[in-house]
Amino acid sequence: MEVLRLSEYLAGHHYEHRNEVFALFEREPELFRPRHDLGMRESRELLMRRWERLHELGYFKNTITSSKPENRLRRMALSETCEYLDHSLAVKMGVNYGLFGGAVYGLGTEEQKDYWLPKVERREIIGCYGLSELGAGSNVRGIRTTATYDPSSRSFVLHTPTDGAQKYWIGGAAESATHCSVFAYLIVDGKRRGIHGFVVQIRDSIEGSPVHGVTIADCGDKWGLNGVDNGRIWFDRVKIPRTNMLMKLGQVSENGEYTSIVKSENELFGRTLAPLTAGRVSIIFSALNEMKVGTSIAIPYAKSRQVFGKELMSVQTHRHRLLPYVCSALVINVVANPLKLQLLEPGQVVTKNFHVLSAGLKALSTWEMERCLQECREACGGQGMLSENRVGPLLSEFNVTTTFEGDNHVMIQQASKVVVNMYAQGLKQGVFGGDLDFLNREELPLRGEPNEMSFIVELMRRRVRGLLPALVPTSGTSEAAEKELVLFEEVGTAFCDLLIFESFEKELNSSTELPCKDLLSKAGVIYGLSRIDRESTFSRSGALSSDASWSVRRTYMKELDRFVESGMMDSAIEAFGVPDFLKAPISGDWLSHNAKAKL
Amino acid sequence: MEVLRLSEYLAGHHYEHRNEVFALFEREPELFRPRHDLGMRESRELLMRRWERLHELGYFKNTITSSKPENRLRRMALSETCEYLDHSLAVKMGVNYGLFGGAVYGLGTEEQKDYWLPKVERREIIGCYGLSELGAGSNVRGIRTTATYDPSSRSFVLHTPTDGAQKYWIGGAAESATHCSVFAYLIVDGKRRGIHGFVVQIRDSIEGSPVHGVTIADCGDKWGLNGVDNGRIWFDRVKIPRTNMLMKLGQVSENGEYTSIVKSENELFGRTLAPLTAGRVSIIFSALNEMKVGTSIAIPYAKSRQVFGKELMSVQTHRHRLLPYVCSALVINVVANPLKLQLLEPGQVVTKNFHVLSAGLKALSTWEMERCLQECREACGGQGMLSENRVGPLLSEFNVTTTFEGDNHVMIQQASKVVVNMYAQGLKQGVFGGDLDFLNREELPLRGEPNEMSFIVELMRRRVRGLLPALVPTSGTSEAAEKELVLFEEVGTAFCDLLIFESFEKELNSSTELPCKDLLSKAGVIYGLSRIDRESTFSRSGALSSDASWSVRRTYMKELDRFVESGMMDSAIEAFGVPDFLKAPISGDWLSHNAKAKL
Ligand SMILES: Cc1cc2nc3c(=O)[nH]c(=O)nc-3n(C[C@H](O)[C@H](O)[C@H](O)COP(=O)(O)OP(=O)(O)OC[C@H]3O[C@@H](n4cnc5c(N)ncnc54)[C@H](O)[C@@H]3O)c2cc1C
Ligand SMILES: Cc1cc2nc3c(=O)[nH]c(=O)nc-3n(C[C@H](O)[C@H](O)[C@H](O)COP(=O)(O)OP(=O)(O)OC[C@H]3O[C@@H](n4cnc5c(N)ncnc54)[C@H](O)[C@@H]3O)c2cc1C
Repeated sequence: MEVLRLSEYLAGHHYEHRNEVFALFEREPELFRPRHDLGMRESRELLMRRWERLHELGYFKNTITSSKPENRLRRMALSETCEYLDHSLAVKMGVNYGLFGGAVYGLGTEEQKDYWLPKVERREIIGCYGLSELGAGSNVRGIRTTATYDPSSRSFVLHTPTDGAQKYWIGGAAESATHCSVFAYLIVDGKRRGIHGFVVQIRDSIEGSPVHGVTIADCGDKWGLNGVDNGRIWFDRVKIPRTNMLMKLGQVSENGEYTSIVKSENELFGRTLAPLTAGRVSIIFSALNEMKVGTSIAIPYAKSRQVFGKELMSVQTHRHRLLPYVCSALVINVVANPLKLQLLEPGQVVTKNFHVLSAGLKALSTWEMERCLQECREACGGQGMLSENRVGPLLSEFNVTTTFEGDNHVMIQQASKVVVNMYAQGLKQGVFGGDLDFLNREELPLRGEPNEMSFIVELMRRRVRGLLPALVPTSGTSEAAEKELVLFEEVGTAFCDLLIFESFEKELNSSTELPCKDLLSKAGVIYGLSRIDRESTFSRSGALSSDASWSVRRTYMKELDRFVESGMMDSAIEAFGVPDFLKAPISGDWLSHNAKAKL
Repeated sequence: MEVLRLSEYLAGHHYEHRNEVFALFEREPELFRPRHDLGMRESRELLMRRWERLHELGYFKNTITSSKPENRLRRMALSETCEYLDHSLAVKMGVNYGLFGGAVYGLGTEEQKDYWLPKVERREIIGCYGLSELGAGSNVRGIRTTATYDPSSRSFVLHTPTDGAQKYWIGGAAESATHCSVFAYLIVDGKRRGIHGFVVQIRDSIEGSPVHGVTIADCGDKWGLNGVDNGRIWFDRVKIPRTNMLMKLGQVSENGEYTSIVKSENELFGRTLAPLTAGRVSIIFSALNEMKVGTSIAIPYAKSRQVFGKELMSVQTHRHRLLPYVCSALVINVVANPLKLQLLEPGQVVTKNFHVLSAGLKALSTWEMERCLQECREACGGQGMLSENRVGPLLSEFNVTTTFEGDNHVMIQQASKVVVNMYAQGLKQGVFGGDLDFLNREELPLRGEPNEMSFIVELMRRRVRGLLPALVPTSGTSEAAEKELVLFEEVGTAFCDLLIFESFEKELNSSTELPCKDLLSKAGVIYGLSRIDRESTFSRSGALSSDASWSVRRTYMKELDRFVESGMMDSAIEAFGVPDFLKAPISGDWLSHNAKAKL
């Protein structure tokens, strides 16, 4: 009962809707059972059929044209649900609705939104998102595509000046998309005006031929995500109407005057890329949901498998290998839920903390997922190699999440920058602000038991306290910091961890109707202890002595055992709510699945 | 020049032969260029064509029938070379020649060898290796297949009593193999006589139909290694001639008397599985060779890629992410070379140290490779996701190496057992023997600089010294040890690390004509520092204080820079000798590879 409430709480919103979608999948297994044995061609075809079916059933109605958070959240719920089945499907829909649609939504005028969004929602057009180029990925400012205004024809001329400037990786471009939100340097009257977005038709119809001046190539076979037809695009002086420039932030008048509502090119840049933030938050949910799938497969298998006369799940190393991921999925889920809602609050301003948490969580959660799925693969022994058992293939399917919508190292450095600047400023002013407030107080001897959240949070603080001075000299200048990039990223990671555990503790303490508080709190402790036990930064920073580390270890092992023996592990897996048909043969009765009688 | 000598030294043996095979691959790209975009069916077909071609060219001549180490080494060189191209090919050949052939070679009588081995070498039959069952993998003693002697017909009756006892994972069984070396409990005159090997025909011809009483199913699509047709086999009271029992260790006479040349069932078990040891050593080379491929792709790419106005390879984090793997590949290579030669020494006895090192290195090297390829994938950004760039697909292709021929956790525990027993015995006797000799001396204050091998080895010793007492009470009983399995494995890992670095140091100091000694010694230091910097066991064990860890960090970063700036990195990549056609487009001129003009 309470577990069901936890399940609903973890879903965050649209619980019923998610279950409806799962029910559809189960009802139509021909189309909607997991497939990890298909080549690129078949994956792409299956994806299109799945998407069409969802469209036909009206799942996207109002989710694009309406600006109500409720509707956007419904689409996010749908996307998360699809991700359990087919990452490519979620990504391709995400590119179309979230990135192309989001670009129009966030960067277009009211008129432009009214023109384009209904077409997207009715699937008359399929959009893709053309930002990255062969020569410029993380470093977005390095793109080279230009859009030059030609007042005589009242049009923009889109151009790819070199092969390095070919748009690369554009999801949907290789085969299906009709339109692309192209990001290019605007040139008006010979002056460069920063990066702006333009809606460019690239194909005459869905899956049709490229239009004149547009050359498209296929990125080809990928290690994962083969359902998405990533493509490369060259523009050879392609003319588009003036009205196809997305003009909310910057405007070009018919006779070629540039105006803008933003103050600086920096602000323009930030706001132009804002739609990516939503994508980043989605990825956090990809990561934690796939951890749920992985552990929901590996743990039941381990409970049903005997090794050397013991139940595999009773073996300490096995608990140590798998349970931290069950717990990190829970913790990240609790912390990310409010983040998502905040994102969609009308008139939300992206605060520094929101930015750090979303960037940091994106990086930490996708790395956590990558290790989780690899561990699940190995934990299932040979069975983890069978495609039908999913855990291996999911690792390749979701691997790209550490790279796209903000490479993880680049993301972590954003957190580093914030905390290092905050610290340097504090040194100058003699008092530390915001999240570094704790530095104003003397450090007291460590109290509390390692199995309490307060202990975990305190250690996270000590690590930040110990690492910062090694990076930033007391003079308060942070210039040297970026040269010591390894340490710089460690500081960012330590800071993100702190924010995560602080948010988690706050959520635990403040939310009165939080279901299964005990379970969640234990999960926080286990995830925390797993990091403290493993990461050498705790001892290097002086936060953890050798003695204390042994006590952490003892407590950690005990908590793992309790988590299993109290039934919390089973409850957690139940609360994850992964439907059976999205698990794997080995998480069920694998003996009869493999019976001779079944041949 | 010296780099070329290093290249030859790393190859260990048959350098010319390897280059010939590479030249063949390059000459016949239709058949022999890397393919990572194929489905299961196509992968299997391609594999068979590749294998046939190698056979046709006479590459296997004398490598199976002759017992000269030189010939067996030649086959190992061929296999390692093939692994750069196609892991499945190497595995399938390995199963046939190394495991099936090895079983006959190691467990058969002279007569049996003379009968079967020429057939294998001439490829008249294809063999597979039938040990694992659905219900029993690591725990080999848990298999249930029986071979009951029937004196009336002078035959053995092979039988699969339950679905759990179906042979599972048998490489080659699903489609091609004609014969299987089946491992089963021998029953003679109602008595169980332990596990023995039997040659059983399972198919009427290569790729033909299963013979009467044998049921075969396909394991199906896998996450990687899809070229290998892994199969499941049931025996329904299948009769085989008495002479098909491999009778070197145990014999059954015509009238049903069992005799044996070994003293105990334990010894029988150990010697029956001995052919797996060679496989284990091969896997160490798989691991380090794939690290060579991964870094030979990611590093040239990083040297040619600009991010935020800097050469990517000049960025500290990037050096920190990639160089430790270049160095671990070198270190493991140096340590594993003599291990392989030792394995093939005529009349070699498997010593305890050999066993620990081969088991431990198998585990540590495959984990190292798994992390290396994941890091290379991410280090290449989006490009790391393209199949043509190999690093991603190689991670799934080689993932199984952490599981098969001895699951890594089980392997590490073997090392743990040895060191814990050695320690417990030392406690009892008041003096520590063998590799724990250093415990007899007082620990002196840490001397030397962190950039010296002696410092690294000393820290490895201190870690072992610090961890053992936490596991084994001074009473000297080691029973409790296995309950603390996480710590137990940490101790085993620490011990393996120590053996690795001790062997490496010895090799460095003793071998006079070692090429590029400076480079190798720096590689040892960097690999060592990378472990000391990352693993929390060093501080927990008391081996490393917080202060010392900062000095390790500083030295580590400096050594990384020097490794690049002195040209050692480039020399190492050159010495790895991965031919260009086995690298990837991004390790070459990727701009022109992606040019519009190429479409
Ligand atoms: C499957 C897939 C789908 C995609 N879909 C789209 C799409 O639809 N539209 C679109 O516009 N783009 C898309 N992308 C592109 C994606 O956004 C980029 O791959 C991503 O931004 C990273 O850029 P990059 O690949 O050029 O890597 P780079 O930016 O070149 O990074 C390479 C390496 O350098 C490291 N690095 C970079 N900068 C730094 C730094 N400052 N400090 C330390 N290390 C650094 C990174 O960690 C990485 O390991 C997609 C990519 C993939 C793989
Ligand atoms: C692609 C492939 C090819 C293969 N080819 C062959 C072949 O040709 N012939 C053949 O006979 N076999 C073959 N195998 C089988 C292989 O040898 C087994 O998969 C391997 O021995 C592991 O056994 P398992 O899969 O049953 O895993 P299990 O032994 O069930 O292990 C499951 C998990 O339990 C853990 N575990 C097990 N024991 C312990 C312990 N004591 N302490 C702590 N943790 C433990 C492991 O770490 C693992 O994570 C193949 C397997 C694969 C995947």
